[in-house]
Amino acid sequence: MSSGRVPFRKVAIIGTGLMGGSLAGALKALPDPPRIYGTTKNPLDRETARIRGWVDSFCETNLEAASEAELVVLAVPPGQVVDIWEELAGRLAPSTLLTDLSSVKGSLFDRYNDRFSRLLPGYTSSHPMAGSERTGIESSRADLFSGKTVFLTPFASGGCAVESLTFFWRSLGARDIPVVTARDHDGIVAHISHLPHVLSYSLFHLACEVQKKNLFPGFDWSSQKGGSFSDIVRIARSSPDLWADIFHQNRTAILEAIDAFSLEVGGLRKAIETMGPTELAMLLNGWTAPLSGGAPRVSPETRP
Amino acid sequence: MSSGRVPFRKVAIIGTGLMGGSLAGALKALPDPPRIYGTTKNPLDRETARIRGWVDSFCETNLEAASEAELVVLAVPPGQVVDIWEELAGRLAPSTLLTDLSSVKGSLFDRYNDRFSRLLPGYTSSHPMAGSERTGIESSRADLFSGKTVFLTPFASGGCAVESLTFFWRSLGARDIPVVTARDHDGIVAHISHLPHVLSYSLFHLACEVQKKNLFPGFDWSSQKGGSFSDIVRIARSSPDLWADIFHQNRTAILEAIDAFSLEVGGLRKAIETMGPTELAMLLNGWTAPLSGGAPRVSPETRP
Repeated sequence: MSSGRVPFRKVAIIGTGLMGGSLAGALKALPDPPRIYGTTKNPLDRETARIRGWVDSFCETNLEAASEAELVVLAVPPGQVVDIWEELAGRLAPSTLLTDLSSVKGSLFDRYNDRFSRLLPGYTSSHPMAGSERTGIESSRADLFSGKTVFLTPFASGGCAVESLTFFWRSLGARDIPVVTARDHDGIVAHISHLPHVLSYSLFHLACEVQKKNLFPGFDWSSQKGGSFSDIVRIARSSPDLWADIFHQNRTAILEAIDAFSLEVGGLRKAIETMGPTELAMLLNGWTAPLSGGAPRVSPETRP
Repeated sequence: MSSGRVPFRKVAIIGTGLMGGSLAGALKALPDPPRIYGTTKNPLDRETARIRGWVDSFCETNLEAASEAELVVLAVPPGQVVDIWEELAGRLAPSTLLTDLSSVKGSLFDRYNDRFSRLLPGYTSSHPMAGSERTGIESSRADLFSGKTVFLTPFASGGCAVESLTFFWRSLGARDIPVVTARDHDGIVAHISHLPHVLSYSLFHLACEVQKKNLFPGFDWSSQKGGSFSDIVRIARSSPDLWADIFHQNRTAILEAIDAFSLEVGGLRKAIETMGPTELAMLLNGWTAPLSGGAPRVSPETRP
């Protein structure tokens, strides 16, 4: 339920790419939008944001933008967050709320506690489970957060940052806003986002190898459109540089998720090897029962 | 390039579910459609086909429908194909062309050669890489084959079945129509369709287990909408009974594909464990270069 405004009249967006741009667009789509200050290293993003009327003022420095704002959103890759903390530390009004949109929290949380908890008080990290395999403000969408999950991870205790940010994201259309610890966040996203990317990269590389070796004459992965293969491989179109960064930052949780997944695949492999179709159908019906609300589905006279 | 008609004036469709229904709809959408004879065990499919005007006559037996037709399409699950061959064997005019839509060819090919090559001459198997996780004629679509790949696997040599069926599928909008052996077909679909289903079932089961054990408080797989997890898990919504059948029938090729995939995941796991972000980015850029036509992508100031 949106009230048409967010609990901040001035918002700074550090980095106006796909995520920061979409955030600016979502805020400017509200009936009573806040004033938006932005920074970007990309002149094209700046130009697009101006044309769309999504950013009121671009500032030369992150500190300049942040100093104007009640809420500062760091919409940069996780590897750049700490450098910006360093730039802003101790230089903002104590009432300024800060958040980022990073998809890995554990290492940031540790760095925050090491050095920034007094210099940037009231910090709560956000992670909107939204995005695109495309990048840059030209791919951004004002409705990017609509219906999506946004995880909140408080880095500091006390204050009302969680309440304000819950209200903020809900105003932009987010549906679920769970509050989770940094450790739980990283374990969750390892399973629902990072592992799917590992599977996608691996499947695509396998297909390329099969084709290169000409194992099956007539095989052409690029002719697959709209089926299960292309649904999975679409995920590998995300930026490799960014995902290398994410994989590296969340490697402990990802390695655990890969190992747990490999056990699942091993179990299904064994079942395919040893079971007849009836027993195998019982297994798959059991595994997928939660998808259909618990009721087993009947066999159709058709095939996917 | 469609000429507005197919090279058959009378087509029998054995089984008017999602695939058979879509085929009937696609044929009836042509400017000069053939007459369509159908059979189904499902009274609802029959009613829907009648309302949509997709089937001209429903017959009581498969033989009755097939006897009327120049082309007979077996649109039933792979496990039912041989029973229908038995029903029709030696009872059709020698000029009658037969095909099926089965997603596994090897075992059918062996059975055909064992017993049916003289009784059902000119048999060529089809596999349209099209479908839906939903089933039944009510989910069928007249444009289901548009832009899709259809594999053709000749079971008998000689004749012009491949040419006629290539023309047939092209008239219905299919884009690629590779002619492949039964062995190559099964190896190809093991990698681009069956393996993706194995990954989807495994990922979903892992997520359910993680949630059941409450490993990460705040984790709820059902709140994931539109991200990489739900893109992959959507695939597991296909009928478990049907997929148990497919997994069982193509188990040799699927086990090989799973093992090859596991090596890929193992390689990426090792890379995540041991490489820094720069080296990892080089690896992922190399793996995904074919997706972007070979050019490495630049790092965006954003995150998916």
